[in-house]
Amino acid sequence: MTKIEGKIVFGIDIGGTSVKCGIFSREGELLYKDEIPTRTQEAGRFILEDISRHIAELSEKNSIEKADVLGIGYGVPGPVQEDGVVNGCVNLGWGKIDVAEQSRKLNGGIASAAGNDANVAALGEFWRGAGRGAKSMLMITVGTGLGCGVIVNGRVVFGAHGAGGELGHIPLVSGLTEPCNCGKTGCLEQAASATGIIRAAQRKLKESDEPSVLRGKDDFMAKDVVDAARNGDALADEVLNYSCRYLAQGLAVAAGVVDPEMYVIGGGVSKAGDFYLDKIRSAYRELAFYASRDAKIVQAALGNDAGMYGAARLVLGSMEA
Amino acid sequence: MTKIEGKIVFGIDIGGTSVKCGIFSREGELLYKDEIPTRTQEAGRFILEDISRHIAELSEKNSIEKADVLGIGYGVPGPVQEDGVVNGCVNLGWGKIDVAEQSRKLNGGIASAAGNDANVAALGEFWRGAGRGAKSMLMITVGTGLGCGVIVNGRVVFGAHGAGGELGHIPLVSGLTEPCNCGKTGCLEQAASATGIIRAAQRKLKESDEPSVLRGKDDFMAKDVVDAARNGDALADEVLNYSCRYLAQGLAVAAGVVDPEMYVIGGGVSKAGDFYLDKIRSAYRELAFYASRDAKIVQAALGNDAGMYGAARLVLGSMEA
Repeated sequence: MTKIEGKIVFGIDIGGTSVKCGIFSREGELLYKDEIPTRTQEAGRFILEDISRHIAELSEKNSIEKADVLGIGYGVPGPVQEDGVVNGCVNLGWGKIDVAEQSRKLNGGIASAAGNDANVAALGEFWRGAGRGAKSMLMITVGTGLGCGVIVNGRVVFGAHGAGGELGHIPLVSGLTEPCNCGKTGCLEQAASATGIIRAAQRKLKESDEPSVLRGKDDFMAKDVVDAARNGDALADEVLNYSCRYLAQGLAVAAGVVDPEMYVIGGGVSKAGDFYLDKIRSAYRELAFYASRDAKIVQAALGNDAGMYGAARLVLGSMEA
Repeated sequence: MTKIEGKIVFGIDIGGTSVKCGIFSREGELLYKDEIPTRTQEAGRFILEDISRHIAELSEKNSIEKADVLGIGYGVPGPVQEDGVVNGCVNLGWGKIDVAEQSRKLNGGIASAAGNDANVAALGEFWRGAGRGAKSMLMITVGTGLGCGVIVNGRVVFGAHGAGGELGHIPLVSGLTEPCNCGKTGCLEQAASATGIIRAAQRKLKESDEPSVLRGKDDFMAKDVVDAARNGDALADEVLNYSCRYLAQGLAVAAGVVDPEMYVIGGGVSKAGDFYLDKIRSAYRELAFYASRDAKIVQAALGNDAGMYGAARLVLGSMEA
């Protein structure tokens, strides 16, 4: 490792199995990154201590003085208030915990901030990724669930109850009977997440005997549905159109609330690129209010690093405010 | 008229038939109000001149010195950018016009700002009405159309294309064939506006021969539907439930984007009070994401004055920024 010069920020993205740790320059250059395991035992009580120890080790190895650390930002997979208090986080075993305050205690008073993982991923893309230069943006991460972050006037919309950018759980999808993880039925993520794509394909295979390359496969992923659709499989294409139309409706609905300059789509499924995005784009143009119709819909640029970027940006932003 | 002392702000709400003019203290007390007609002739070219002349007259009558006028704020019934440029306004005959700039020219350089009428009404309720003390708020005005304004971190969300808070035109309503004014079909205002309530009642009367006090009436208003429902008319109650459920879905969807602290419902229909609001509240609780479920839904407090209040607040805010 080479010596890291000048002022730096730590961007920490806490996931259910590993913690991604990034060292950033103040301007947002990723200077170094690695991962440590997430110890979720005993209600996740070791997680912040492990991170603190790792930060101390990284600082020593890289000759980073405490005075050079501008702050530590965290992305957390649960609802987080603007002041850095997490309102419970099932994946980590956490109850209510003030992550910013704990971090300051564990790291000798270094400025700290925390945000929801989807929100900080959006902030990361806004700062140094696909949303660079925009003033407002909405990001959707299409994965197991549907992550979302909303940026207005350059700031993450945390929401009054830590639920800003919970687009995955807006009531939109009709005709479903199975409940969403949140307890309701008809949430956008039930149709638009990767899981939603798989479930829709399974339903469609069951309901008809239309031929499809997906038929008879024991387990398939959302990527298999996308690949099949791209290769001309009519059933898979229909499933993908269904999913993309709901996602587009979600964006059109968000347009009527905050009218963002652009939309950034991330997560595994978005790697299908224009084949997938064009389906969203054409449905969005049809569904959105005319003034918002030309907003760009683009692919995310930072991949799995977006959360680290945004966590770093979050603590820089909170220092400016 | 008594002499008006101290620094003041003009809050001007431009409607299609009249212009409401208010004189406010810096703290938001309405000191005086009146109206002048809106001259929409010749592409609305006289409107801002008429207002300027009226401001000069009011200032003279009330011994208001130019140095005491902090600013002039305008509410305009069309899309307005954050810099005060109006992107066309059918009701006034305007094309693209920089209202803030024109106002400064006509009024000797006095600070000026303009916003969409629904957005400034929301800002008015936020400043001095039902939203007082909140940090974020969404206001819906149930009238001929469905007006909406969104406040996040104390600021109006104008949107990248002047279309922030266009909740009336989000695609939500299924089963309609007639188009909305905006050209699409299935916009929220087609079910949730006063016009939407009337149309839904007309459809229901046509489709069934269920008895109803509305049957046989040539013309009825949304208020008649509400009154009938309140008096136990089953058909009217069903229509109102339909309308309120869609409105609640609109709020639940907005919750997933900005998660506001509260919702304020204004416009003629909202005067029905809790009988109407309780239908929205119970559907909202069912449809919203759990974290946002307890957000308050309350009646607007400022009536037709909300626009003047918000226009005044807008120019004060733009001076602080």
